[in-house]
Amino acid sequence: MSSQPKDLQGDPALPPIPRDADDDLAPRAVEARRRAWQEAAQGAAPHVFGAPVPFAAARGKIENFVGFAQVPLGIAGPMRVDTSAGVREVYVPMATTEGAMVASYSRGMRLLRSSGGVRARVLGEGLTQNPILVYQDAAEASRAAEVAARSFEDLQRIVAGTTRHGRLVALRPEVVGRRLVVSLVFTTGDAIGINMAAAATELCARELASRTGAQERYLHGQDVEKRANGRALVEGRGRRVVADATIPRAELIQRTRATPEALVAIQKSYTVGFAGLGTQNWLVQAANGIAAVMIACGQDAAYVTESATGMLDLDVDAKGDLYASAHLPCLLVGTVGGGSGQGTAAECLALLGCSGEGSANVFAEILAATVLAGDVSLMAAFASHEFVASHEKLGRNRPQG
Amino acid sequence: MSSQPKDLQGDPALPPIPRDADDDLAPRAVEARRRAWQEAAQGAAPHVFGAPVPFAAARGKIENFVGFAQVPLGIAGPMRVDTSAGVREVYVPMATTEGAMVASYSRGMRLLRSSGGVRARVLGEGLTQNPILVYQDAAEASRAAEVAARSFEDLQRIVAGTTRHGRLVALRPEVVGRRLVVSLVFTTGDAIGINMAAAATELCARELASRTGAQERYLHGQDVEKRANGRALVEGRGRRVVADATIPRAELIQRTRATPEALVAIQKSYTVGFAGLGTQNWLVQAANGIAAVMIACGQDAAYVTESATGMLDLDVDAKGDLYASAHLPCLLVGTVGGGSGQGTAAECLALLGCSGEGSANVFAEILAATVLAGDVSLMAAFASHEFVASHEKLGRNRPQG
Amino acid sequence: MSSQPKDLQGDPALPPIPRDADDDLAPRAVEARRRAWQEAAQGAAPHVFGAPVPFAAARGKIENFVGFAQVPLGIAGPMRVDTSAGVREVYVPMATTEGAMVASYSRGMRLLRSSGGVRARVLGEGLTQNPILVYQDAAEASRAAEVAARSFEDLQRIVAGTTRHGRLVALRPEVVGRRLVVSLVFTTGDAIGINMAAAATELCARELASRTGAQERYLHGQDVEKRANGRALVEGRGRRVVADATIPRAELIQRTRATPEALVAIQKSYTVGFAGLGTQNWLVQAANGIAAVMIACGQDAAYVTESATGMLDLDVDAKGDLYASAHLPCLLVGTVGGGSGQGTAAECLALLGCSGEGSANVFAEILAATVLAGDVSLMAAFASHEFVASHEKLGRNRPQG
Amino acid sequence: MSSQPKDLQGDPALPPIPRDADDDLAPRAVEARRRAWQEAAQGAAPHVFGAPVPFAAARGKIENFVGFAQVPLGIAGPMRVDTSAGVREVYVPMATTEGAMVASYSRGMRLLRSSGGVRARVLGEGLTQNPILVYQDAAEASRAAEVAARSFEDLQRIVAGTTRHGRLVALRPEVVGRRLVVSLVFTTGDAIGINMAAAATELCARELASRTGAQERYLHGQDVEKRANGRALVEGRGRRVVADATIPRAELIQRTRATPEALVAIQKSYTVGFAGLGTQNWLVQAANGIAAVMIACGQDAAYVTESATGMLDLDVDAKGDLYASAHLPCLLVGTVGGGSGQGTAAECLALLGCSGEGSANVFAEILAATVLAGDVSLMAAFASHEFVASHEKLGRNRPQG
Repeated sequence: MSSQPKDLQGDPALPPIPRDADDDLAPRAVEARRRAWQEAAQGAAPHVFGAPVPFAAARGKIENFVGFAQVPLGIAGPMRVDTSAGVREVYVPMATTEGAMVASYSRGMRLLRSSGGVRARVLGEGLTQNPILVYQDAAEASRAAEVAARSFEDLQRIVAGTTRHGRLVALRPEVVGRRLVVSLVFTTGDAIGINMAAAATELCARELASRTGAQERYLHGQDVEKRANGRALVEGRGRRVVADATIPRAELIQRTRATPEALVAIQKSYTVGFAGLGTQNWLVQAANGIAAVMIACGQDAAYVTESATGMLDLDVDAKGDLYASAHLPCLLVGTVGGGSGQGTAAECLALLGCSGEGSANVFAEILAATVLAGDVSLMAAFASHEFVASHEKLGRNRPQG
Repeated sequence: MSSQPKDLQGDPALPPIPRDADDDLAPRAVEARRRAWQEAAQGAAPHVFGAPVPFAAARGKIENFVGFAQVPLGIAGPMRVDTSAGVREVYVPMATTEGAMVASYSRGMRLLRSSGGVRARVLGEGLTQNPILVYQDAAEASRAAEVAARSFEDLQRIVAGTTRHGRLVALRPEVVGRRLVVSLVFTTGDAIGINMAAAATELCARELASRTGAQERYLHGQDVEKRANGRALVEGRGRRVVADATIPRAELIQRTRATPEALVAIQKSYTVGFAGLGTQNWLVQAANGIAAVMIACGQDAAYVTESATGMLDLDVDAKGDLYASAHLPCLLVGTVGGGSGQGTAAECLALLGCSGEGSANVFAEILAATVLAGDVSLMAAFASHEFVASHEKLGRNRPQG
Repeated sequence: MSSQPKDLQGDPALPPIPRDADDDLAPRAVEARRRAWQEAAQGAAPHVFGAPVPFAAARGKIENFVGFAQVPLGIAGPMRVDTSAGVREVYVPMATTEGAMVASYSRGMRLLRSSGGVRARVLGEGLTQNPILVYQDAAEASRAAEVAARSFEDLQRIVAGTTRHGRLVALRPEVVGRRLVVSLVFTTGDAIGINMAAAATELCARELASRTGAQERYLHGQDVEKRANGRALVEGRGRRVVADATIPRAELIQRTRATPEALVAIQKSYTVGFAGLGTQNWLVQAANGIAAVMIACGQDAAYVTESATGMLDLDVDAKGDLYASAHLPCLLVGTVGGGSGQGTAAECLALLGCSGEGSANVFAEILAATVLAGDVSLMAAFASHEFVASHEKLGRNRPQG
Repeated sequence: MSSQPKDLQGDPALPPIPRDADDDLAPRAVEARRRAWQEAAQGAAPHVFGAPVPFAAARGKIENFVGFAQVPLGIAGPMRVDTSAGVREVYVPMATTEGAMVASYSRGMRLLRSSGGVRARVLGEGLTQNPILVYQDAAEASRAAEVAARSFEDLQRIVAGTTRHGRLVALRPEVVGRRLVVSLVFTTGDAIGINMAAAATELCARELASRTGAQERYLHGQDVEKRANGRALVEGRGRRVVADATIPRAELIQRTRATPEALVAIQKSYTVGFAGLGTQNWLVQAANGIAAVMIACGQDAAYVTESATGMLDLDVDAKGDLYASAHLPCLLVGTVGGGSGQGTAAECLALLGCSGEGSANVFAEILAATVLAGDVSLMAAFASHEFVASHEKLGRNRPQG
């Protein structure tokens, strides 16, 4: 498998994804797409194409192993993304059983590509863990907070002594009654790094407890872990990414039969709904795209809970074009560790040019661009009142009415 | 594949899951578990055991199909659940790449089983959709609200005319300025039924718009869809399920080295963290178990965002035993439609005795019991400070420190 | 004191509030406004005008009484409101020490009046209390939920037997683990009625506990009481009110130097801020106006926490005019009981034509109109970048730079 | 008026508040309390005792002044607080019309005093403002974020040039799509300082906009202002204060007929309610005490929305005593500026020994101790099921049954 970045800088673009109007699941149609995959990835994807993954690929990833769940995998695109590692054109692998979804994303990607592509950038990174130490009273907790603040560099050294990939980059002690909540932020390289962070947190909490005479100590690392929450939208966790694009008015209307104003009006209406819901997910169908890419790429799909946090912004600019951005402050993804290194997951990451070390930022950027594509596409379908119709046509996976 | 319910009423229980202390991925070990699966399901699971799923199984579930993502699949249990269809003993299939997770759930299931098992019940059901109609001003929106309330039975008839499985069971109009938010609640049989509900919502919204002279109409069905939110915890969506169990003090201490009081103390500490987070997920590792079962069983994993909503309650009762309950108001799962009917998903549902029509409630109840098992297990690991250690030992899927 | 409604239907309007450009606190200036008050209220307001309130007025309202806090009181307006009791023109009494605030509200009221006035309506009413009953396990809690649902009419009778003013109008039982949360909704006439509701809740909870064999019973009436919360925006509490108005484009520009588009753009920007905050108060300065009217009118100012919940909606309509609405689902106010009946409070309510029984709806409608006036005024000040300047000029209550 | 701190260090304590069992509003009874006030404050409080406040006291605090709202004022206590300025014993002035409330606070204060008193400390301080700058796209917003971060010291100088009391102490730029949210944190001395902060924010936003070529600029200072919100609980605003106390088991039982365990059990039950509500106010009746002290002491009562944010923690310690703490991260109060300097407000602040400069921290600490006293008292009333009964007896301000 090859993973070399496809920096375009004027290069020829990826061809459209082959489709067969008669029967898109006919062997010939599937074969054509597999060839497209192979050329884009500069290598085959034998496990995606049907070869059983060997048992050994599951080592350290699961207990009581019995086999593999096989989840249908499609590709969306091509998508053009200006990433931190240069401009890339990619097909995006998505594993799902929700009919019409890959088509929706694919339509959005083509629309954004014909508009010049998406720009996406990681703006920040950090895996927060919040252990709690308990003291006799608030006075002791306050003293402990000062000790904690002064211990930052010592704790950094302790963490540095136990892991090559993780670094403690911030510490914020907060007194809540007789409890001291210690927010620790780690960087974790190209892995999500939760096990590393939990181990480091245990060390830090134990050290602080000993320095301050805590009565109780709760690793409590799980508190933000895999949990949608209000702080997520502001503080972020994992990788904080922004993706944006400008879609020329004519392009939008021609491809989706919706105007920029119609999309903006829908979003204004959404505001009423989202405010009433009390949600931190102000995107549209982010959970769909994130879950599908995560399953394809060997990510921990439980993180879709946190990752589907953010905001979609739509504006009509001075020229009447549509400006669209997706703010995704909590993308919890990795290209090292977890399920990323073997089998179909490794093949999917290779298709994105995101294999292994040095790839996590680009992977997060591609994921953010994917979310933007899906949200613009779905909003356009809402605007043109084509949403239900397209599900009627493509989604044949439901019980007959 | 067989799906007959395994009502125990005194029946012999399932045997422990075979494990191999030397190499649990050795062919012999995997084979032993596959035999256990086969006996429990009263039939083989060829696709889980390695046979490629045919392309046709993906029909209506995905576009631009290229193959299948293969996700490692393990089984946890045995778990004993008192469901609405009788007492069942099951192995629970979980697809994940997070090392130590299946072991954690499995330990919790065995603990609960040796305590007499979990009781789980669906308490309610309903798939909410909230279309928005916009009027000239609040006076017109108020008049429209009255029309909407009066139109409930007409809309029920309209919905009944388009679907056999879905029913409109409630309608609540709410005026917000000049907007009318119409909360529609559907029952959808054994399917999640979102496509059905969206189509019915479109019909209802169009009818109401026409009766009331709305200026604009937003299907807006997506507003709660796949979005963690504050209303979810109170109103619920999909299936509302409760699971509970009482774990004898001695049993808990012997199996986990943790006391009931230690678990309750941790949960009290969590309260500080969860309140500060502003989360609707007051469970512990619910997202893990839900995502893993969803992927195994052909569910739409994007729904983990909503489904991982709820509360874990732990109490020490008068006898010093641990009472534990999981409140899960938003389980969005189905045994009909979606990805449930083919390939490995169908085999996993069969293992649970939850194939097809009439099975969605039991499936939701088993899922709730699974969440309870995982949360009790993880809390006990936290209480005995064994969490990090167990990840060090089992989780070998991370980059080397 | 007179309280007769001032139904305008073509009547002459209230004169502008007299002001003195040189020294607005000069006796002559204050005297002129007091005459205006007297004419509007068709009676004097001796306590507002300086006569000490007798001790007896404090009976039942406070313990350890030592005297009266004297809070500066101004009037804003005139405001024209189309209420459920006809069109009214009023001066609105506001007690505050925040310089520039009354002027801001007054400007907004005059703007709305010259645009034809505000329309405001109570849409619903209900004081929720949520007692909790605890059972041995979830099975018993579920059975108790059924008993509770069946006991609704009995409980209504019990409540009716203890109070003339309050009625139990809804009951919703919700099982959360082994707890049963019983949402009780009361109507309370023209009083806020929290003491009545708490007493009735105690009776209902005791009765249900006895019918169902609850182990524990928590009156827990306070749980929503005086607490900003996410359910408030959707469910409402107290009186749910909508106020709206259309402001002609030319009128807005001439009076505020801001365009409709500028106000809408600010609100769009606010969305980013409010979403990130996780707030249920999507209004602008609602807390200011609500607190000031509450203090003037003898309301319980602690309710500003709940009452300042809602949404401001701004739109440019087809003619280029500004449509503005305020959604206030939780106005907790009364014209009977509490501090409403004596002293300066009674005089302020009389100025609004809202004395005693039958007035609570109109009072809530006037309050909602006041909130709308203040929010439009402040948004216009933001739009014209005059906010800081006006505080520099009017607000002389801060320490010198 | 005297404001000298009453550092106790062994001093004789304040006498109990005089009460008259027959008629507590009889002139003799009121007079006795006024003498107690006078001795505690070492000076009279003529305006509290009935003398009309002169018009001039309203200068800069209100427009269209007509007189004063007179709100019943009582005193609670004595309360003993270990503050940052030494141990103090105080009577706490509360203005309210909610019968039974002052008695409830007073009971709590006496309970805490007989347990050795409350300790309270300001842990941090900062008035946040979040202006928003808008750029062409996310790339420009990202560049602007870097400029903003680099401009911190320049902005500090600019702010320092315009105000003696305020300081810019932190700046955090956050990119959200093409918007840059600039969190600015100010310290403001003993004033709340919102006008100062708004003016400084305007300067900073204008400067940053000019340095970075922003397309639009929203002062947006109001976004957190007077708005309950989720960030408040974690980030705090104004003064962050903790108050705690340990109440000997016997003392609690004797004075309230409730056990420590009963209070802890109620709080556990509250958790279910508060989680479901999605609230940031995990205290019990905080809004009551804060509003009443704010009105008495010339504070801006609209800030009760933000100030009533926090957590009550109750624990049974190893000796069986009750540990209680109140976490109040958003106390927005001042002893300089606003309504604090004149009339009854100045007299009330003097009673607390908190007049003018150097007093804001102690005032915030006394307020936090007051909140703790009220919450412990009310929880004890709930525990002994005396809540409704006490309102029946004391609260005579409601309509008759």
